[in-house]
Amino acid sequence: MYFASDNAAGIAPAILDAIAKANDGYALGYGNDDWTRRVEHRFAEMFEREVAVFLVPAGTVANALALAHVTPPWGAVLCHKDAHIATDECGAPEFFGGGIKLVGLPGTAGKISPETLRSALDQGEWGGPHHVTPAALSLSQATESGTIYRASEIKELSDIAHAHRLAVHIDGARLGNALARMNVSPAEATWKAGVDLLSFGATKGGAMGAEAIVFFDPARGAHMADRRKRGGALLSKHRFIAAQLEAFLAGGLWLKLARHANDMADRLAAGLSAAGCAPVWPVEANEVFAPIPRDTDKRLKAAGAAFYEWPPLGLSLPEDRTLIRLVTSFQTMPADVDKFLATLRG
Amino acid sequence: MYFASDNAAGIAPAILDAIAKANDGYALGYGNDDWTRRVEHRFAEMFEREVAVFLVPAGTVANALALAHVTPPWGAVLCHKDAHIATDECGAPEFFGGGIKLVGLPGTAGKISPETLRSALDQGEWGGPHHVTPAALSLSQATESGTIYRASEIKELSDIAHAHRLAVHIDGARLGNALARMNVSPAEATWKAGVDLLSFGATKGGAMGAEAIVFFDPARGAHMADRRKRGGALLSKHRFIAAQLEAFLAGGLWLKLARHANDMADRLAAGLSAAGCAPVWPVEANEVFAPIPRDTDKRLKAAGAAFYEWPPLGLSLPEDRTLIRLVTSFQTMPADVDKFLATLRG
Amino acid sequence: MYFASDNAAGIAPAILDAIAKANDGYALGYGNDDWTRRVEHRFAEMFEREVAVFLVPAGTVANALALAHVTPPWGAVLCHKDAHIATDECGAPEFFGGGIKLVGLPGTAGKISPETLRSALDQGEWGGPHHVTPAALSLSQATESGTIYRASEIKELSDIAHAHRLAVHIDGARLGNALARMNVSPAEATWKAGVDLLSFGATKGGAMGAEAIVFFDPARGAHMADRRKRGGALLSKHRFIAAQLEAFLAGGLWLKLARHANDMADRLAAGLSAAGCAPVWPVEANEVFAPIPRDTDKRLKAAGAAFYEWPPLGLSLPEDRTLIRLVTSFQTMPADVDKFLATLRG
Amino acid sequence: MYFASDNAAGIAPAILDAIAKANDGYALGYGNDDWTRRVEHRFAEMFEREVAVFLVPAGTVANALALAHVTPPWGAVLCHKDAHIATDECGAPEFFGGGIKLVGLPGTAGKISPETLRSALDQGEWGGPHHVTPAALSLSQATESGTIYRASEIKELSDIAHAHRLAVHIDGARLGNALARMNVSPAEATWKAGVDLLSFGATKGGAMGAEAIVFFDPARGAHMADRRKRGGALLSKHRFIAAQLEAFLAGGLWLKLARHANDMADRLAAGLSAAGCAPVWPVEANEVFAPIPRDTDKRLKAAGAAFYEWPPLGLSLPEDRTLIRLVTSFQTMPADVDKFLATLRG
Repeated sequence: MYFASDNAAGIAPAILDAIAKANDGYALGYGNDDWTRRVEHRFAEMFEREVAVFLVPAGTVANALALAHVTPPWGAVLCHKDAHIATDECGAPEFFGGGIKLVGLPGTAGKISPETLRSALDQGEWGGPHHVTPAALSLSQATESGTIYRASEIKELSDIAHAHRLAVHIDGARLGNALARMNVSPAEATWKAGVDLLSFGATKGGAMGAEAIVFFDPARGAHMADRRKRGGALLSKHRFIAAQLEAFLAGGLWLKLARHANDMADRLAAGLSAAGCAPVWPVEANEVFAPIPRDTDKRLKAAGAAFYEWPPLGLSLPEDRTLIRLVTSFQTMPADVDKFLATLRG
Repeated sequence: MYFASDNAAGIAPAILDAIAKANDGYALGYGNDDWTRRVEHRFAEMFEREVAVFLVPAGTVANALALAHVTPPWGAVLCHKDAHIATDECGAPEFFGGGIKLVGLPGTAGKISPETLRSALDQGEWGGPHHVTPAALSLSQATESGTIYRASEIKELSDIAHAHRLAVHIDGARLGNALARMNVSPAEATWKAGVDLLSFGATKGGAMGAEAIVFFDPARGAHMADRRKRGGALLSKHRFIAAQLEAFLAGGLWLKLARHANDMADRLAAGLSAAGCAPVWPVEANEVFAPIPRDTDKRLKAAGAAFYEWPPLGLSLPEDRTLIRLVTSFQTMPADVDKFLATLRG
Repeated sequence: MYFASDNAAGIAPAILDAIAKANDGYALGYGNDDWTRRVEHRFAEMFEREVAVFLVPAGTVANALALAHVTPPWGAVLCHKDAHIATDECGAPEFFGGGIKLVGLPGTAGKISPETLRSALDQGEWGGPHHVTPAALSLSQATESGTIYRASEIKELSDIAHAHRLAVHIDGARLGNALARMNVSPAEATWKAGVDLLSFGATKGGAMGAEAIVFFDPARGAHMADRRKRGGALLSKHRFIAAQLEAFLAGGLWLKLARHANDMADRLAAGLSAAGCAPVWPVEANEVFAPIPRDTDKRLKAAGAAFYEWPPLGLSLPEDRTLIRLVTSFQTMPADVDKFLATLRG
Repeated sequence: MYFASDNAAGIAPAILDAIAKANDGYALGYGNDDWTRRVEHRFAEMFEREVAVFLVPAGTVANALALAHVTPPWGAVLCHKDAHIATDECGAPEFFGGGIKLVGLPGTAGKISPETLRSALDQGEWGGPHHVTPAALSLSQATESGTIYRASEIKELSDIAHAHRLAVHIDGARLGNALARMNVSPAEATWKAGVDLLSFGATKGGAMGAEAIVFFDPARGAHMADRRKRGGALLSKHRFIAAQLEAFLAGGLWLKLARHANDMADRLAAGLSAAGCAPVWPVEANEVFAPIPRDTDKRLKAAGAAFYEWPPLGLSLPEDRTLIRLVTSFQTMPADVDKFLATLRG
């Protein structure tokens, strides 16, 4: 009954196999290897266009490098006020960006609405020399509240952002979960909807530690190799990070793993709803936020269930309830979900 | 005949096994796991004292974080002018340190002499507000020239550094190779010789991607956890980096692997000397720098040998010779060395 | 009828005289001069304690250097959401602090309440490695809304801040205006109320370009000289900035100038109230925020009055009114105020 | 007998007058004033082309902002190893540039030769991802050794720099002294010789505290206004810095003041030569470096002469001599020079 986080899961077997298989002979370091070339090609194929791809070992540094690359030091990144980059990365984007500012926007269920974005851009005081200049919009897909942006929503937001000359970035730590839910291609959910660059996550999805920064306009990625190196995020035995991503993408494994995680979230959500603890936000990825009675919370923990209580982020809950976050992963077993639900029901 | 770099080697089998074994069930992310606790304990045991340990995925970020932690933004790091931190990290220490300055000192065979250090500190213009303030001495062990500092040499340099209030850092990307050569304990070669903090390398030695920043005074490591996170170098599935280091240290594996690499370097050196191409610097670790005839260079490459030509760094070679660098690793086979030497002899 | 800003005023005659008088012979640069020594002494006298003082030419760099000195790169500065440091300094504190985060708190009339501060500190997610660590509270005195913190209010906020280990900083660009209003000494309004460091403003008050960073615990100012130099804010012909501050402080000139500005603001406020345009926030310094009919706004501008319209910052005004900001200075003439009010009345 | 530094001089009378005259009525802050517009126009006229001009209060911040604007964070600035930016600015360029690297080149008499520059660029290890990328060449005009680059020398260096895609910057803290010596126009000594941007110094030349960053291609200066503001170097009462520069440029005052300082240096040099203490480097600006007997040094100091001993920077002097630096300024009196020389002769 482990629902604390998807990064508490291990490595998907096919990915571990790929690491082991890559461990054969010598390969030049720093990305001058066949695995890297193949995975770059695979990304281009998958996104149906030329892309510039940079592999890094962790999601925070993917976001920080990506945002620093499209935001001048006097620039601002607009994001949801509860976005991971704003609250859980200890100032990494600010550091990598040389002191850029993250501007948090409000929004229900972790999502920024077009009205909110438009109003922030049109009515805020922006621009030099006294005010920072908005340079990027960063969307979390899926969001920190387990919801997702539909392609049309991304398009609408991107259009507003582009009209104000902002680059559009997606923090895709859980992009697989979002895509597995929607009936759209990776291209449709990203650059065809106006996305300029992407932190493509694999770690939460089943890799050991592998993320990719993807520029949909390769020219925009110029010098990211330098930035990555001096940012300390270039791995020397690079073939092993490339091998992870290659296996993750092969045959759509990433979407299969994500779909399983989503299914487990749905199963949790259904059980919770049936038990009178319906999730507070739509369950669209692999996270479920449910208000449960405080004594149920205790009972679940006593039974060994692992999960976090969560700040209600503006929602008002009955006094005797607490909001909990349940995260599923590729590794979550239906039996675990069912045991959790049985314990919930008491 | 692969001698281009030790980071072109793969993962030592025991370390790959450890990754696979760690892939069992769930573990909290970010270092809150048993593997991390065990490896921290193991470091303390090995160094015979309490230490503060921070694991990171790459050597550049280990150095950059370590140096930034002991150098104020208006400070300088003194190092050999050909040190990796000065020449091969694309300004990472400067970036992580908020604009610190690296001051390169000259020195034969990659080593800084006590006289050079003393003179730089005593005769340079240092100190605020106009000049930067020396804050750290960084020594590469083994050096970029394949030589090593004996414990007594480190002690002498540390004494000078400490008398001027500098912290002493070791870039130990190849610390195992240095230690395997000397008959001293890890403690004797580090804190007992005055070293304050260490970038402990495992990647070049046989890991997939794992380094440790070690503070010998744990208090000095306060807030390094924050710096590491905002520096993008905290891995979420942290157990797998800890597992690598645990296996690397277990039973002295790291020293065994290093000793093998050193032996292969010695074998190369002996053959080169016999062929009239004696190494230009003492072969004390796993790197051999030899001046070979230009046509031999061509013949070796034609035969498939992989290695780099190297700038002679102040040495004057005969016109018809070129300096080459040969790096061995845990993976180097004696047969490969012998084939290389046979080809060399023509 | 010039009420656009107090930095549109010139130099107070006594200060200009002091510059001219200082222009006699030679004086060592960078603060090694008699003017600087005298003004440092004068600050200590005025604050009734030993202080460390660093002169800089502008308010933004005073704030940025001060905050950077007490906030580690992974730290946060809590301030009012409309504070100058948060909205009008183009990210200078973030830049000088190596990527620190400014966290804006809400509050009526530009002031942070104890409840708001306590709740932010107790209920926010703070601390490493994932979240930034609050390191400083910055209060604007007077505030951007023309209000002031009483010494007892500062004390209450400082106590909360100190209990959470935050340093307390005052952005005193208009400190003179605040002090001229209250019946307390500079010491009582600062360190006796718990303030740790201060950006002491003279430019808006009548200097040409002179501010002082004051540390009430001199030890805390260690190395600020280095930070100031590398921050580009150390003037070479330093005697002239010291001379400005010496004249500003001499005989309480700064408070006399501020009192005049405050009186002019009161005169404006009284006239506005009489005309049915009572200020929306208490007029406690030299700024008046008044909701005036839109056609009156036009009439005033047509008559040559200079002032800015201002965002209502959460207030709801009648549709036919606009909020304007009127700033007075040492240079404001009563006749100008009266002419403005006459024009207002139509 | 004050020869310690040209920044120990005061304000040239015409410049102090200009400050006083500008102190009339109100003027919008931050450069939105007539003085600023006029001085921008004057710069364009003087340089015979459209330029982008940004005024700042000190030379260090002028250099740091200028270099940061043309050097990416992973870039390097090549300069003479004894350049002010490399040795006397406490790391300001590194800080403002987000961790850029300054690479010091050797060179006789403070000057970089074309051969040295060419060799550094062609033979150094440059470029991503492992090495920093040279992005700017910075020349000091006059140099720290009191010598100057002729226009043809600048042209030759610029051609090499441009061929390697570097921007060419001049640290013109003493540009007036250099120009007063040569029979060329400001345009010929800068952009017509390939210079891309300039730190134009006025402070050492006679201003109170005023420097200008000049971009000869205005497009290249885009967003410097933002960088200056967040770098803390935008003055609010901006008319007074503009007034200083306006007076400095009016009627060629800056060249007249510089010519006087140069003449005083020549007078010193002639006297020193006659006394057997011929300067070690050509006296081409307002600095004289002379090896004097140690007992003469004592006698001069005892007589009240103010000057610094100077490191011989590679020269070997007789044991009984010490190198001294004498700096003249617009304020230096012939009688002072003569008294110094008389004392020297004993």
